[in-house]
Amino acid sequence: MPRPYNFSAGPAMLPEAVLEQAKAEMLDWRGSGMSVMEMSHRGKEFVSIAEQAEADLRELLDVPANYKVLFLQGGASNQFAMVPMNLLRGKGKADYLNTGQWSKKAISEARKFCQVNIAANSEAVNFTTVPARETWTCDPEAAYLHYTPNETINGVEMHTVPEVGIPLAADFSSTLLSRPLDVGKFGVIYAGAQKNIGPAGLTIVLIREDLMGHTIAGTPTLLDYAVMAKDGSMYNTPPTYAWYIAGLVFQWLKAQGGLAAMGERNQAKADLLYQAIDASGFYQNPVDPAYRSWMNVPFTLPDAVLDKPFLAEAKSAGLLTLSGHRSVGGMRASIYNAMPLAGVQSLVDFMADFQKRHG
Amino acid sequence: MPRPYNFSAGPAMLPEAVLEQAKAEMLDWRGSGMSVMEMSHRGKEFVSIAEQAEADLRELLDVPANYKVLFLQGGASNQFAMVPMNLLRGKGKADYLNTGQWSKKAISEARKFCQVNIAANSEAVNFTTVPARETWTCDPEAAYLHYTPNETINGVEMHTVPEVGIPLAADFSSTLLSRPLDVGKFGVIYAGAQKNIGPAGLTIVLIREDLMGHTIAGTPTLLDYAVMAKDGSMYNTPPTYAWYIAGLVFQWLKAQGGLAAMGERNQAKADLLYQAIDASGFYQNPVDPAYRSWMNVPFTLPDAVLDKPFLAEAKSAGLLTLSGHRSVGGMRASIYNAMPLAGVQSLVDFMADFQKRHG
Repeated sequence: MPRPYNFSAGPAMLPEAVLEQAKAEMLDWRGSGMSVMEMSHRGKEFVSIAEQAEADLRELLDVPANYKVLFLQGGASNQFAMVPMNLLRGKGKADYLNTGQWSKKAISEARKFCQVNIAANSEAVNFTTVPARETWTCDPEAAYLHYTPNETINGVEMHTVPEVGIPLAADFSSTLLSRPLDVGKFGVIYAGAQKNIGPAGLTIVLIREDLMGHTIAGTPTLLDYAVMAKDGSMYNTPPTYAWYIAGLVFQWLKAQGGLAAMGERNQAKADLLYQAIDASGFYQNPVDPAYRSWMNVPFTLPDAVLDKPFLAEAKSAGLLTLSGHRSVGGMRASIYNAMPLAGVQSLVDFMADFQKRHG
Repeated sequence: MPRPYNFSAGPAMLPEAVLEQAKAEMLDWRGSGMSVMEMSHRGKEFVSIAEQAEADLRELLDVPANYKVLFLQGGASNQFAMVPMNLLRGKGKADYLNTGQWSKKAISEARKFCQVNIAANSEAVNFTTVPARETWTCDPEAAYLHYTPNETINGVEMHTVPEVGIPLAADFSSTLLSRPLDVGKFGVIYAGAQKNIGPAGLTIVLIREDLMGHTIAGTPTLLDYAVMAKDGSMYNTPPTYAWYIAGLVFQWLKAQGGLAAMGERNQAKADLLYQAIDASGFYQNPVDPAYRSWMNVPFTLPDAVLDKPFLAEAKSAGLLTLSGHRSVGGMRASIYNAMPLAGVQSLVDFMADFQKRHG
């Protein structure tokens, strides 16, 4: 029986080849006699795993030499605090875009540490679009601008990088590695691993070196980018097994043709699903077409009473975890890198069939 | 070929049965069609895994009902900040015992947040003993007393729980679950998972409920025990796979007879190794016999020039990761729960043989 297609928003589907390799190496990594879980993080076996993963990630994203790559813990929520604690650099203000539920959480946390200027806000329209760049009201004294390129819950994605003249801090949790990215345009990029990268419990951070070393008073040691960078993310014991799985994902991405190939594939998957929704006269996606996410596609049925049968029948058809976020309702299909086009086609076919029977 | 014995101080050896089960379930957890890594943390499958793990841990440690059990990230190093940020409760002082390298790190971090009183200090004797309780100089205004029941690097363990009249905060990273423990004597107990519990990237915290909800200003949300407790450690995405592996370890511990049985076994393992060292006239352990660790046994050879051949020959004999911590030198055998008596016997036999050839 083929594996079902899992549309979870995260933790999410992983490439089957990665899971097969992890399974094969579970009790003995390449003749070492150890599971990767059992290895000292300072031993030569794990150090080789860690270094290979960083090298592959740098290659995939073409990370400039003046950026550090960190493998941390705590997810995006931890970064919501780390960004202001590290990037204010003597200033007391920061610009934030409020374009979805995750933006809101980042803003709420930043308010513990600085004065937040909301430079743009789409909450009044239920986060279904992003205000045009020329309408943003940036603060000339802001230390950085924070935004969320892809809003996992609302399905809103900004497809270009804004120009603002101060360091950009961006929560790429649900879109990093889904397409090529110009890392050099950012001050700091961070991403929880559990969407496109690997298991939950690992956070990837790319940070421009000159922005480190300026934490505010009372910053815990682990929340200082400079400390984590100095020791190659091994100031304390890192999440070694998650780091290893991420490394397998990076190798898989390279074998797929890298991020340009993934970007084409992801756009094709998204186009297929949005076209099916728009053409159905049954399903609906509320997001401004210019800002529709390639990764997270929320959609509603004409009557919420149909949600339960939709989910039950989808599960029987091998289509898992399609329930929308509780704050939005309806359905959500997350179609990250590991979701093949065939999975989206299966979903589209099922949706058409369901509509025929219930429409 | 049998698996080698891995004496790593952490990440460390895991029970073979746990790794075998993880391997078998890697692509499909119990017919769900998903790897545990791929499950939404809010789905019924993972919630059942999480709840079972907590129930088993509560049973193993007989955790009183007024204690929360948390599954966090960041390891002990993160707790070094969380303890003062949460437990000062309006006071400005805390007592700390300085009994080893990990105590020192906890003290250094606490100084960011409060005035630290070193109530007892064994640094002058290279952390080879623990000052007697009656010599401690506690501060009557201290909010809590922090100590490290087992010092992983120095191999020093306190075999009884001190009475101090204020909440005890204790770093049990390398000894939790190695024997029965009276949790009710503590304010907060924490442990990085990567010794006796599971993979790196998971931290277990047991905290008395009345001590929560009093964080100092500027505490990041994730570092607030009350927030993490309120949402069952799911305020943000938890390290799901590490939580699952820990749950398998808890089930394995129950199958072994629980912590009373583990305590007997661990004491027997430690006795075997210390007796072999003491009787050898060749190997040496510097720690006061009353405070020798059951978990981490550092020892030296008569001449450091023998270290390299010892490690190389041990590896050939299937005895891995015996190098001592760089701050102490020599060898260190970490003999956590997953190390069977047969592993310690193999080490002792090898040591006798090595001595015959090099002594």
